[in-house]
Order: sequence, then C-alpha cells, then structure tokens
Amino acid sequence: MKRKIAVVITARPSYSRVKTVLTALKNAPDVELQLIVAASALLDRYGNAVERIEADGFEVTARVFNVLEGENLTAAAKTTGIGILELSTVFDNLKPDIVVSIADRFETIATAISASYMNIPLAHIQGGEVTGNIDEKVRHAVTKLADYHFVASEGAKERVIKLGENPDFVFNTGCPSIDLAVEVLANPELDFDPYQKYGGVGEKPDLSNGYLVVMQHPVTNEYTQSRQHIEETFKAVIEINLPTLWFWPNIDAGADGTSTGIRAFRENNNIQNVHFFKNMDGIDFLRILANAKVLVGNSSVGIREAAFLGVPVVNVGTRQNRRDRAENVVDVVHETQIIKDAIQWQIERIRYQSSDLYGDGSAGKRIANLLTTVPLHFHKTISY
Amino acid sequence: MKRKIAVVITARPSYSRVKTVLTALKNAPDVELQLIVAASALLDRYGNAVERIEADGFEVTARVFNVLEGENLTAAAKTTGIGILELSTVFDNLKPDIVVSIADRFETIATAISASYMNIPLAHIQGGEVTGNIDEKVRHAVTKLADYHFVASEGAKERVIKLGENPDFVFNTGCPSIDLAVEVLANPELDFDPYQKYGGVGEKPDLSNGYLVVMQHPVTNEYTQSRQHIEETFKAVIEINLPTLWFWPNIDAGADGTSTGIRAFRENNNIQNVHFFKNMDGIDFLRILANAKVLVGNSSVGIREAAFLGVPVVNVGTRQNRRDRAENVVDVVHETQIIKDAIQWQIERIRYQSSDLYGDGSAGKRIANLLTTVPLHFHKTISY
Amino acid sequence: MKRKIAVVITARPSYSRVKTVLTALKNAPDVELQLIVAASALLDRYGNAVERIEADGFEVTARVFNVLEGENLTAAAKTTGIGILELSTVFDNLKPDIVVSIADRFETIATAISASYMNIPLAHIQGGEVTGNIDEKVRHAVTKLADYHFVASEGAKERVIKLGENPDFVFNTGCPSIDLAVEVLANPELDFDPYQKYGGVGEKPDLSNGYLVVMQHPVTNEYTQSRQHIEETFKAVIEINLPTLWFWPNIDAGADGTSTGIRAFRENNNIQNVHFFKNMDGIDFLRILANAKVLVGNSSVGIREAAFLGVPVVNVGTRQNRRDRAENVVDVVHETQIIKDAIQWQIERIRYQSSDLYGDGSAGKRIANLLTTVPLHFHKTISY
Amino acid sequence: MKRKIAVVITARPSYSRVKTVLTALKNAPDVELQLIVAASALLDRYGNAVERIEADGFEVTARVFNVLEGENLTAAAKTTGIGILELSTVFDNLKPDIVVSIADRFETIATAISASYMNIPLAHIQGGEVTGNIDEKVRHAVTKLADYHFVASEGAKERVIKLGENPDFVFNTGCPSIDLAVEVLANPELDFDPYQKYGGVGEKPDLSNGYLVVMQHPVTNEYTQSRQHIEETFKAVIEINLPTLWFWPNIDAGADGTSTGIRAFRENNNIQNVHFFKNMDGIDFLRILANAKVLVGNSSVGIREAAFLGVPVVNVGTRQNRRDRAENVVDVVHETQIIKDAIQWQIERIRYQSSDLYGDGSAGKRIANLLTTVPLHFHKTISY
Repeated sequence: MKRKIAVVITARPSYSRVKTVLTALKNAPDVELQLIVAASALLDRYGNAVERIEADGFEVTARVFNVLEGENLTAAAKTTGIGILELSTVFDNLKPDIVVSIADRFETIATAISASYMNIPLAHIQGGEVTGNIDEKVRHAVTKLADYHFVASEGAKERVIKLGENPDFVFNTGCPSIDLAVEVLANPELDFDPYQKYGGVGEKPDLSNGYLVVMQHPVTNEYTQSRQHIEETFKAVIEINLPTLWFWPNIDAGADGTSTGIRAFRENNNIQNVHFFKNMDGIDFLRILANAKVLVGNSSVGIREAAFLGVPVVNVGTRQNRRDRAENVVDVVHETQIIKDAIQWQIERIRYQSSDLYGDGSAGKRIANLLTTVPLHFHKTISY
Repeated sequence: MKRKIAVVITARPSYSRVKTVLTALKNAPDVELQLIVAASALLDRYGNAVERIEADGFEVTARVFNVLEGENLTAAAKTTGIGILELSTVFDNLKPDIVVSIADRFETIATAISASYMNIPLAHIQGGEVTGNIDEKVRHAVTKLADYHFVASEGAKERVIKLGENPDFVFNTGCPSIDLAVEVLANPELDFDPYQKYGGVGEKPDLSNGYLVVMQHPVTNEYTQSRQHIEETFKAVIEINLPTLWFWPNIDAGADGTSTGIRAFRENNNIQNVHFFKNMDGIDFLRILANAKVLVGNSSVGIREAAFLGVPVVNVGTRQNRRDRAENVVDVVHETQIIKDAIQWQIERIRYQSSDLYGDGSAGKRIANLLTTVPLHFHKTISY
Repeated sequence: MKRKIAVVITARPSYSRVKTVLTALKNAPDVELQLIVAASALLDRYGNAVERIEADGFEVTARVFNVLEGENLTAAAKTTGIGILELSTVFDNLKPDIVVSIADRFETIATAISASYMNIPLAHIQGGEVTGNIDEKVRHAVTKLADYHFVASEGAKERVIKLGENPDFVFNTGCPSIDLAVEVLANPELDFDPYQKYGGVGEKPDLSNGYLVVMQHPVTNEYTQSRQHIEETFKAVIEINLPTLWFWPNIDAGADGTSTGIRAFRENNNIQNVHFFKNMDGIDFLRILANAKVLVGNSSVGIREAAFLGVPVVNVGTRQNRRDRAENVVDVVHETQIIKDAIQWQIERIRYQSSDLYGDGSAGKRIANLLTTVPLHFHKTISY
Repeated sequence: MKRKIAVVITARPSYSRVKTVLTALKNAPDVELQLIVAASALLDRYGNAVERIEADGFEVTARVFNVLEGENLTAAAKTTGIGILELSTVFDNLKPDIVVSIADRFETIATAISASYMNIPLAHIQGGEVTGNIDEKVRHAVTKLADYHFVASEGAKERVIKLGENPDFVFNTGCPSIDLAVEVLANPELDFDPYQKYGGVGEKPDLSNGYLVVMQHPVTNEYTQSRQHIEETFKAVIEINLPTLWFWPNIDAGADGTSTGIRAFRENNNIQNVHFFKNMDGIDFLRILANAKVLVGNSSVGIREAAFLGVPVVNVGTRQNRRDRAENVVDVVHETQIIKDAIQWQIERIRYQSSDLYGDGSAGKRIANLLTTVPLHFHKTISY
C-alpha cells in the first residue's frame, strides 16, 4: 500500500522552498502525495501560489481558506484557530500516514497541532534556526510537536537535538530552496524579460547594466513600525538611484503597514528606476537574484539562496537575527544613511564565492526519500 | 496602575492545582485578577469547576465554551482551534499584561498560542515534566511559547533550561497543589461525611477501618484500550474487596471509553463496597486521600500530593511515566493480578515519610509574587 | 453525468424521517448520493445514528463534528456557527448539484446558509409547519433560504406559498416518516424482544397485556423548566402503573435538564414497570408504537406516525402547538393529574382510524424523484 | 434599570444608514447603547468605519473580526459562521435586552442567528424590500428570525406582514439614511474640498461645472462577471468625459473582481477627469451627491437618498431589481452604449422633485423610540 504523505503549503515562499521535495514525492512509486494548500497561498493579493502550484503540474488535494482579515495580531491568532478547525477535518477525511509542516510562519502551528493531536506522525522542515520574533516561538514549539526533523544546516541540527529530540530522527538535509539554485549557479544568464512575463507596476528601468533587488517584510512584533522601516529602506534605495526590482511583502499582521508605506511613498514621490512585482516563479526569481548587484531587505533569501549564488546582501533589521550567515551578508539597522552606505559597499564587492552553508542542492530528494522510508511513530518523550 | 493578570482555567484539576495562586493574586494589592474559565471547567459532566470557583469566592471575568463533542481525537484538535478563536477575542477585550497557562492538557496550548501571537507575556505553570503521550508534546511546545516558567521540581527546572529557555525566567516554585496539603498533613482527621456532602452513586461502605481510593484517567494515545484498562483495575479492586471510593475520570478523547467501561462493569456486576464520586473540593479530597490505605490509578495526585502526605500509591500504566517519584509509588502494568498484588503490598506499608520533592507548601505565594513583579517582555530567542 | 445530491443528516430522528428518501436516491440510476452526517447524529449519547446509517447499507461521504458542549443556549448558536464553517468546506470539496436540509432543528440552518451562500440549489423537507419555539423561527428562515420545498401536508403547502415562495417549487409529498409505517399498519405484530435487541436500563415489564410509550423532549425556550416538566409526566406515568417503555430525549440546550430530571427521578424513586431506551431502528420503533395503548409526551411522532397507525396520543405542553392534528391526539398541560386523566381517557379509546393527513406512504419516492428531476436554480425573489 | 440595546454594525454603509438611530439612542435617558462593530466595518480596505464611528463620538463596546479572506463564495459562508461563534460570546457577556440587525448583507444573518438562538429579542431594520440575489434570501430569512421590524416604505411593510409577521410589530419608520439628507436638501451647497478632506487617488478634475458620481458594487450571484460589468460602466463614463468622482465598492465575494477591474482599467488606460475615493462621511457624501449631475452605478443610494434629493440616477444591472423607485431612476443593462445614452438623458433632466417614498427624515428618532419602548418578547408563531 502506498504511503500517504500530506504536505501543507500555507504561503508562496513555503511552496518555493519545498518545490523540489514535492517533485520528488510526486515521482516516487510508493507514495500518494496529498497536497493541501491553505491560508495566503490561496489568495490573489499574496501571489496566489495555488495557481503556480497547479501550473507546475501538481494536483491540489484540498484547499483551506483560513486567513482572517484584520490589521492586528488578533487576526493572526484567529487564522491559526480556524486553520486547526479546518485541517483536522481535512486530515480526518484524507487519513494521511504522515504530515509535513514547513518552517515557522505563525499559521504553520495549525498543521502541527492538528496532526499531532490526531496521532498522525509529523515531519517538520527547517526547524532549529534562530530569529528574533514570534517565528522563533512558533518554530521551536513546532519542533516539540514534531516527530521527524529535516533541518537545513549543522547548526540547526545541533539545536534541534539540544531541544531534546531523538538524534535518530533529526536529519541535516540542507534547505530544499537551494536545490533550484544549482542550475542557476551553473548557468546564470537572465533568459527572460521580467516586465513582460510578470507585469507588475512602475517604471521599467533598463536592467542590462545591473540592478538592485529589494524584499522587505514586516516584522510581526514591531508592526506599528513597519511603515517607518519600509520608508528608511525606500529612501536609501532612491538615493542610490540604480535600476531596482522591488518585491511585494508577504502576508502577516503588519503586512498592511509595510504595504501602505510602499503605496504612500510611491504616491508622494516621483519614483523612477523602480519596478514592483508581486512575485515570480522560483527559478525565474533566482535568475533575477543571480544577476543582481545587491539584494536589500530582510528576506531569508539573502541568507540562503544568495549565499549559494554568491550575491552580496544588505540585511536590514532584526528579522534574520542569529540565522547562520555566509560572508555575503552585511547587517544594518533601519537608517537610511546606513542602509545606503552598506549598499554602496556591497556594490563594490561584485560577487562572493558560493557557500554550501545551507545545502548542496539535493535536499528535496533527501527529504522525499526520508518521508517515504522512515518508520512511522507519533510517540516520543524528551531525551533528558 | 494595577497589573492585569489573566489566568485561564480549563479543567477542574487545573483549578485545584492553582487555587492557592489565585488566592494570593486576589489578595495582592496591585493586581487585577482576570479569571477566565473555559472548556470542561464549565461543564456539568466534568464536575462544573466554575461553580466551585465561585463558591470559593472568586469572580469569573469571562467564560469560554469550546469543548466540541466527539468520541475521537479530531474533537480534541477542534476544541483547541475554537479555544484560540475565543480566547483571542477575550484577550483583545481584557488586554491583560500577562497571561498564565497551566500544565499540559491538550486544550491549554490554545491559551499559549492566543497570548503569544498577540504579544502578551505568557507564564507557564508546571513545565519541564516528562510523561508519555500527547501531553508530553503539548507541555514542551507551551514551554517554547512561554516567557516565564514556574516549575514544580529541580528536575523540571533543569529540563526547561535545557530546552533553551533563559534561566533568569525559570523558577522552581514547587507545585501549588501541594500547598493545600500542608494543613491536611498537620491535621489529617476525616472531619466530614463524604456521602452526605458529595452524593455520588453506589454502595456506601463503612470507611472507619480504612479504604482504597481509585482515580484512573484515559490515556489519550491509547484511547481504544481505555475500556480494557479500566476493567483490569476494576477487577483488581473488586477482588481486594475493601471499601473503595472511586473518582470519575476527567474529559479527554477516550473519556467515554473509560466512562463506558465503568458503567458497563457496574451494570454487569453486583458491585459492593464501591462508591463513585464525580469530584470533590481540593481540601476535602486531600483528607480522603490522607486517610486512604492506598491510592490506585494513574493520577498525578499519586506522584505529588500523595508523596507529600506519605500515602502509598499503586500507579497503573504509562500515564505518569518519567515523572519524578518519591518512594511512595509502586508502578504496575494493566493486569488484574499484578495490580492486585501491588495493592496488597502497599496496604502493608501503611504509611511513607512525607516528601518535599514537589514543593514545601508555599508555591502559590511564590508564583503570585513572581507574576506581580517580573519585568514584562514577550521577546525571546533560544539560548543556544 | 450523474446529479450529485447532498443530504445532511444532523440527528437520529432526522435520519428516520428521510430514510425512504435515501433508499430511493441510492437506487436511482442517475444520482450520486452524497450523505453528510453531522452534529448529534455522530454522537454516542444521542444514539449514534451514523452506525445505524451504515448498518442500513448507506455509505457516509463526510462526517462533521460540530456539537459544542454546554448547558446553555450559547452552545446552540456556536454549534451552528461551527457547522457553517465545516459544511462550507465539505460543499467546496464535494461540489453537490443540490443540497437537502431536513426539518427545523436549530443546527439545520447551517446547512441552509452554507448551501445558499455558495449558490448551490437548496431543497428543504418539511417546511410550512407551525410550532411554538425557536424551531418556528428556524423553519421559516430556512424556507426563505431554500429553492425547493417538499412539505408534508396541504396546510404546510399553503403556508410556504404564503411565505412568498414560487408555487411551482412547493410540493406536498407527504412526510417520508410515514412511509415506514405502511408495512407496519398492514402487519403490526411485535416480532422481536425489545429488551434483548436494544438493551437499555431499568425493569423489564411484561408487554403482552399492553403498555405505554413515552417520548418527551425539552422545549428550547423553556429549558430551565425542562426538569419540572419531565417530573410531572413521570409522576403521571408512575401513577397509571402500566408497563412503560420510555425513550430518552434528543440533544438540545436543555437536554440535560430533561435528562437530569429523569436520572434524578429514577434515583429517588423505586420505579417499577418502566424500561428506558436510548433509541431504536425506525421500523422496530413503529412496531412498538403500533402496539402501544397510548403514546405520551411531546414528540412529533404522535402527530404523524401515530395518526397514520391510529394510536391514541397524549400530547403534553406546547412543543407541537399548531401542528395539524388527526383525531388521535389529546392535548394537555404539564400537570400530573391532567396528564394522568388524559392517559386514562385514551386507554379506553383503544384505537383510532388511520389518517393520511401527513401522507400516504410514498413520500420518499416522490421526494427522490423530484430531487433527481427538478431544473436546478438558486436565484429567486419573493412572489409579492 | 436602563434597557440595554445592542446594535451590530458590519459595514460602512450600514453605519451611515443607522447613524441617526444611534444618535437618538445615545441621547435617550433610559438606554444603555451597546455598539458592536464587526466584519468589514473594522477593515482599512473597506473604509474603516470604526474610526468614523469613534470620530462621531460613539463608544465602541466590542469589536468582532470575522472576515475570512478569499476570492470565492465559500469565504462569505465562513465569515458568517465565524460571526456567529464570536457574536454569541459577545452577547453572552453583554447580555443585551434587545439586539438590532441592519438590512441584508450576507454577514448580518450571524447577528440574527446568535440573538434569536440565545432568546434575545431581535429587531430588524429594512426588511421587506426586494432585490435579486443572495441579499434577497438573507433579508427575508432575517425577517423570519426577527421579532420587531422597522421598515422603510409602505411596500416593505406590506411584504413583511404577508410573510406572516404580527402587524403589531411591523413599523414603517422610513429609512434612517434619509434623515441626514434633510439638512442637505435645505442647504445643498458643497462646502468643502473633497480632494483635500478625503485624499483618494487619480486626477483632481474641477468640480465647479458639475460632475458625475459613480458607485458600483459587485453582485454576489454573478461575481465572475463583476470585472466585465465594471468595465462597461467605466467605458461609458470615460466616453462621457465629465469630471467624475468614483467610490470604491464594498466587501463581498467578488469585491476583488470589481476592484481588480477598476485597477486594471486604470493601469491600461490614460484616465483623466476621474478621482477615486474609498469613502466619505455620510453628510459630506450627501452634499457631493446633491450637487452631482447624475449618479451612476447600482448603489441603493440612488433609490433612496437620491430620490429624496431629486438627483438623476442611472441604475445599472440587477442589484436594485424590484426596489420601489421614485421617478429619478433610469434602469439600464450592463452595456457601454446604453449606459452612456442613459447618462446623457439624465444630464438633461437636471433635477427631479424630492420624493418621500423612503421616509420624511425622522426615521432615526422613531426607531430609537420604538427600541426603547416596545414590550420585549422572543416568542412568535407565523400568523397563518
């Protein structure tokens, strides 16, 4: 009988992160892949990952709408509560043999609670990392609910084991988001016109002499400051005055703070040289990244994929605090002048050497293989 | 301005456990106690703790009905999801400065998620212990969501610190459930007629020459076995043929397995010498316990209060696995003959020396004092 | 392509009512029957209708646990809210062509809202009747949400049309609960031992010289009175002192009032001659009814099935107010003496003539045929 | 003791509609006004009515976030389910003597269900009207759940009575939205600069020689067509080429269709002469309306306020089907040329006579007075 493996995707970046896992599972002979798409991954204004997923040839087994609207943290809690209500019904019907929860967004704990409470073995991808806000609490709580851990670095593996998990079930697979970058590192040429392929709004600056990429997300615990933070970055980028490709932030309490800041800044300033995208397919995005002079913002892409591709990064603020870094990252606070100086410094670096800190490009296959073969159990006790 | 401290009570045993904390908070001059009663603590068939709470002179600030009916594990997950939906509204209205979550029942993670997601500092009572089922996952996950830890033993303190928590905010206060036992240990006389005061059903055996007490709860991960387990215990108790006071199990997926087992056994056997209670006030129960020949079952009362009172305990099955024990406990598996032999052995021990393994009787005051004075924060990162 | 017809069963009596509809749908060649079992129909303590349904050979397509525990009216509202959340996910996945909602229990409006809000054509069975409590509001509100109406009497048909519904889609099919009674009316012999087949508790009085049947449900709007009401009936029945078969009430806010009343009365009185059943298969129950001297209580069974079978009925209280009656019914208030006198009067009547006020026994086939053939639409406006 | 009157506001237009009721209740001596703000009335992207409410001097008693994100009808159903869950908790805490539900938006039935299921008397404002989509089902279903009816016209009164409601509790008070227009009708001068006061986006055409106003909402049952519908209107308005003030649509399944259509049209066309507002205070909006050459779209404002103010209206599509009209309305289908011709025709009409079809301007006081004085009950049966 085929092993039924349920993967719950709750956001576009999570999908990009595990795409190679899904591909490997889909092609595995003894696996029935149950793909559950939920939360912002279903919503237009966060990039409608589900369309991407289906366009990539995956069949969606169930859809769960659970994002509660609201400009406050209460909505994040409620979204999680609704997620549990809905996912437990989904699991009740699909009866998966094992459930996979990805990373540390707030709503992912709904997957972990539904599965663990229903005695379904739970695997967690990307535990053991360290950041500085609610994600930190969520990530380690999910580790304590999970039975199998697929982590992205040696540092992460050590931490998960220190958290009292059985070392037999903690696997450093590397991060599957790196997998896609292997091909791009080998052949980095920008082979498509991003304006034509992805639309977006704003000027369409010429990219042939280099450009910046910006991705800055709100930080949950400081969401009232989101608007100010985004403005500091905006000013720095404008003053640098290079062609810039700006990617819209993901959903979160405070997302509207950041979004509003971007909209207001655009409305009140005559901005040139900047084009805004909602999102982009993983491989296309990596090509854009591979050819950027500098990546600016606070995305984990700067820590992982950019390290593998050797792209200089200006990491702004606390969002990636204490994540292991390769040498490509310069950290700065939310101040226009400091951000600007750091961008200038990194422009001159041109390129760093490729780092395998977060994997060598085979994480997807390793994770799929483990999901297919680990002995199933849902009972554990702390190791100390 | 008074510090607003919200305590969420979700079950009758949790109330008994923290009663002395609540009393100390109620009497503290600079505290506004927000008492939130939820889940089975509101329901008749689980002992209606809320009536007891009000009879004890506490004012209930908010009530949250969130127990979903169902004879399966899905209902436990859903109860938790509804709890998050409801509690986040309650917190949104009450705006507590700090929230207290108690122990490790499945639904308590709803308190932890709502508070932590809303950036409200979260204190957890009784983390760091070790058991063998879903409670184990819940307990440590709540630890990773919490900012302050009030643990009941040195072993628990060490474990919470190993989990990466800041030692400055991990306090071994002892278990407040022990506090009530101080008075009983000093003066253990049975000063009331339990039949008259608490009703219940079944024969009313004479207690003056000693009696057994039985408390056996279902074990979540084995709920289909609950009925068999309870029958093994039942047979052993019947064969011992001493006056017996049997306490009804608490709510859980599987509660009905145990309850059904008890009902069926009663219906099919002519049982003498056994009286059944739904529940009892903390102090009265401790007097009953203090005068028992042996406590039989799998309640944590056997590990904690009975140790302090020196009462012999026959602990059946895996529910208290790996909890630190004093010498008063004998562990047995679910087999009639083995349970019976252990009861006989313990009857002959008569009494053990009082142990302070789980506290010296001042935990309530210590916890209340800490809740009132700790600097408030909700931001943390793992310590390694 | 087969028409997908979703029927939502939320309680044991609703199942009995539509069983012949389900059988006809199951046997129809161009129909895919989607059977959704929800609410108390899934719960042991309300008779676990789902087991009966499966034993009768129906396949359950989806299960929805949505009963919130609680001894108050708030729980009824919340159960409905959860029902909408869950049923809309179910409909989203099953994509039925038409949805069927049954009668007027509070939780049935969840079916009606989910379907109508999702633009799925909605059929309602048993609209247009008149009672005196929350069911009254629910029933007519569901009529206003529904697109097709299968009513049980001419009076009901007139009322639904007066409510502004298009007469083309209001069909007097009779009540399908009558269908089962056709066979029993033809051959009423009691061909099984109810004690042996259905267990239950209490004495097992000899039934060969006749017996009473009692079914009394709580009335939502008066739930604090439920306990007193049930006691009046209990006293009357005890004083009559005939063999009595008593059926446990269904779920409702207040169910516990009635249940508690029954339990307390049993505990405090030495009751003989009364046996208690949780429930019984439809056809068996009808045989029990057909041979009863009198049916006592407030069940709609007295108004419908008993009329068809010619069984004398003492209808107590307001629950069946304004439902059309045949001559077999005597209405009384909640007073012991009056109930007793009425029982005595009815005993002497022995039998009434069979009435077809609520149908001729072919309702199930008619409804199934209409569900399979009506043109599908979900757009309507009031007719005046 | 003061009568506790709870009013639930779920959208910005509903607030505008009942503002004069709230003012009268706030000033009534024996009333405790419990103002509950929920759903889109709390959300920035639908105009954040709650800020307006507080700026107007009302105190908000409770906030309920219940809007589930999603571009489909399922989200509307789920929003309603969450609303019931949350509102029943709110009512449980506030214990209102009577609850007021407004009009017919899909989520308003949550108010009606929570109140009626909890035996709280329910008043409904604006029943008895006729439209052509899901609102139609919702409106009449709420009527059947409600105990008191405050309707806006004689036609509406007749319909509610025909629906079987007791005529003693059906009151034609007129529509309170008209109340604000009394002052504007007397003194219609545009006394503020809308661009300066309300921001918005787009060109800022000169308004001194007249202008169009556009308000077009998605129609739930046709949401896939929303985008095409809005484009037809857009083209007609562009071709007319007069200064135009365009108001953003309200929330609904399909809102994003309409919004997307507007955004796309703006992005792809060089639009001049059009300014877009999210919303405006009631009285300011009425002044804008009073001075408009024509109101275009499908808002009920065209049927009510515009009739009272004598403003010519081009009503597009089916949304206002069968609402009683004064002579100021011309109805058209969704075709550019036809819409354009109708606008041209209406421009030449200049002004119509004021109509009192929907009230004389004292509805707010009448409704408040009735809410304060009607005998309270929650029990009813259909009148036929």
